[in-house]
Amino acid sequence: MHLIVVPQTHRFSEPLPLQSGAVLSAYELVVETYGQLNTQRSNAVLVCHALNASHHVAGLHADASGQPVPRSEGWWDNLIGPGKPVDTDRFFVIAVNNLGSCFGSTGPTHTNPATGQPWGADFPVVTVEDWVNAQARLLDAMGIQNLAAVIGGSLGGMQTLSWTLQYPDRVSHAVVVASAPNLTAENIAFNEVARRAIVTDPDFHGGHYLREGTLPRRGLRIARMIGHITYLSDDVMNEKFGRQLKPADLAPIGGGAEDGVALGYRYTTQEVEFQIESYLRYQGDKFSEYFDANTYLLITRALDYFDPAREHGGSLSAALARATAKFLLISFTTDWRFSPARSREIVKALLENRREVSYAEIDAPHGHDAFLLDDPRYHQAVRAYFEHTVAASLSGEATHG
Amino acid sequence: MHLIVVPQTHRFSEPLPLQSGAVLSAYELVVETYGQLNTQRSNAVLVCHALNASHHVAGLHADASGQPVPRSEGWWDNLIGPGKPVDTDRFFVIAVNNLGSCFGSTGPTHTNPATGQPWGADFPVVTVEDWVNAQARLLDAMGIQNLAAVIGGSLGGMQTLSWTLQYPDRVSHAVVVASAPNLTAENIAFNEVARRAIVTDPDFHGGHYLREGTLPRRGLRIARMIGHITYLSDDVMNEKFGRQLKPADLAPIGGGAEDGVALGYRYTTQEVEFQIESYLRYQGDKFSEYFDANTYLLITRALDYFDPAREHGGSLSAALARATAKFLLISFTTDWRFSPARSREIVKALLENRREVSYAEIDAPHGHDAFLLDDPRYHQAVRAYFEHTVAASLSGEATHG
Repeated sequence: MHLIVVPQTHRFSEPLPLQSGAVLSAYELVVETYGQLNTQRSNAVLVCHALNASHHVAGLHADASGQPVPRSEGWWDNLIGPGKPVDTDRFFVIAVNNLGSCFGSTGPTHTNPATGQPWGADFPVVTVEDWVNAQARLLDAMGIQNLAAVIGGSLGGMQTLSWTLQYPDRVSHAVVVASAPNLTAENIAFNEVARRAIVTDPDFHGGHYLREGTLPRRGLRIARMIGHITYLSDDVMNEKFGRQLKPADLAPIGGGAEDGVALGYRYTTQEVEFQIESYLRYQGDKFSEYFDANTYLLITRALDYFDPAREHGGSLSAALARATAKFLLISFTTDWRFSPARSREIVKALLENRREVSYAEIDAPHGHDAFLLDDPRYHQAVRAYFEHTVAASLSGEATHG
Repeated sequence: MHLIVVPQTHRFSEPLPLQSGAVLSAYELVVETYGQLNTQRSNAVLVCHALNASHHVAGLHADASGQPVPRSEGWWDNLIGPGKPVDTDRFFVIAVNNLGSCFGSTGPTHTNPATGQPWGADFPVVTVEDWVNAQARLLDAMGIQNLAAVIGGSLGGMQTLSWTLQYPDRVSHAVVVASAPNLTAENIAFNEVARRAIVTDPDFHGGHYLREGTLPRRGLRIARMIGHITYLSDDVMNEKFGRQLKPADLAPIGGGAEDGVALGYRYTTQEVEFQIESYLRYQGDKFSEYFDANTYLLITRALDYFDPAREHGGSLSAALARATAKFLLISFTTDWRFSPARSREIVKALLENRREVSYAEIDAPHGHDAFLLDDPRYHQAVRAYFEHTVAASLSGEATHG
């Protein structure tokens, strides 16, 4: 029995003031929901997405004849659905595509009403706080005042944390996975190299490539390759690829030396030699076909800017004093992008404010990507938290569909 | 009293067979030497350079009038020179620029005798083993049979290790700093992204940019930025740059929101916001002005290909059985490019062969770059090794100049 989902578009005509000072006069948000809102309207769970994800979190999409599209599962389908750790038989789960995205909600590929042309680089800078404000308006429109929980991984975890600071009265529980209270200099550095690869691609045209009928695919490929390296652990890359060579489709290039042939090397600087190169090129190519370059810039900047401690003189403890939610934090030992130490900073700051916090540090080999994977200890931690802690604070039982 | 050095060019007309099967029919090597060869010809020390370095290891260059050029110190001037840890009052130090480089020895910016055009992408692939063979011929030409020591960091450490395998009878001591027995999948991945940035730059022209009168500066900038991130530790980047903003030269861009102004953000996706971005862009710009793109491809490939265990079924212990030198290995705790674990693999394989090995794991904050810096514990370890162990095995005392 498949969960078939249909995205819905919500239009907003009340202008949204952004942190930068810009104002978005009207916008759309694309949303999916799973499960049913109970009569007390108390069982809603909001899912916040990370860099290259969308509102399509769980279930399958259907084709025109109503048949499920193979391999169209949502990006967190292993975690969220009927009987899953975030159980949609019990919770009403809402997933929203963020402003600035290229997956449906208003973003740089849409038409700028002021010019009649695609927004491109003129799309205003959006922050984690702006996204949370837009999500709160969506909930207003849906008639939902309180969230049983907000959950997100990576950049989604930053939105989750920000919800507890911007709307402390509306969030009962916050589940923050593989996240951080801000980016380190190294994190910003990787984002900046990726952005420079995009911006310096001659097909970028200052961000107005759609007007020019081009796409900065070269830059997007490089950006994705860099990103991909930082999502994986050194260990998992060694296990998966190690120093394996790509099998030769053709006779060895420039072969002849007995040594060389024995080693299996083709001795080439521009062609693929190792499997890891082939994998990264494939990931880069695929990404460059579907992702918007301006969206990449906007979302990496939202990551860079997020820093709730900033307006509190760098004190995360002072920043988190506003939060009243109960927290579950989860990190993964081999995640070097958002290491366990970063999650522990949040745990410490919450404990200094005497908040209720659970923390699970999962010994997983997969690096940052672990938050998307089906690790039994990780999923059990989420399941237990939703079954016992989140469910216990619902004012009544969920209706079943 | 300054050490003034003058590089010298050695020409070789005997063809050099390369590991790839190609043959370099004639070539030049640019060399600097420091100190004096003793009468027993027993005090020679060879220095092998890493990715973007050269034969200019120590001392200063002079201008036309013989005056020292300010800030022209060699790249390992803090370690090598009169009275320094590798003491040129005692040892005759030889530094050679490798084939394929862009700093003087025959490389892709030189003329291909077969075409009368710059070699460009047609320059043959060179390996660590090829470099060592060329260095050995240089020593033959200089009348030096035995090296008191070979020393190198990073890729230079790989050459040092390879010397003990290719010419075990000619090396008494090997000093391998911040190196590895091969690259991991992650190391190769970073090299590959850098290469793709170069190769996909429209100004690369398949590697024949010199013929076209262009330079792939965009790609080189990205390559250098990626490299730079991997040379530094997360800690040192946080300490040096953290989340500091670049001071505004101008009024804030798009400012107006009170929040934004209070946070000091300019809210821009394409301009510099953080200091770390400014630093990386500067490093990338500088590098793209002096480094050759084909050299970058060749040298990163030499790193990728090095793997002495490969022809021994992956057994490093079997590979190192040929080595008869005594070893000093040094690693740095925060080096995540070539972590201490990689040096320990070499130590373990040498011990399995009952070789004499000293190993120092230096607790230094600077990441891979530490091998170029003036850390007292590191320098003391090198000094002690040369003063006591290397000097003890000289057959006589060095003459003084």
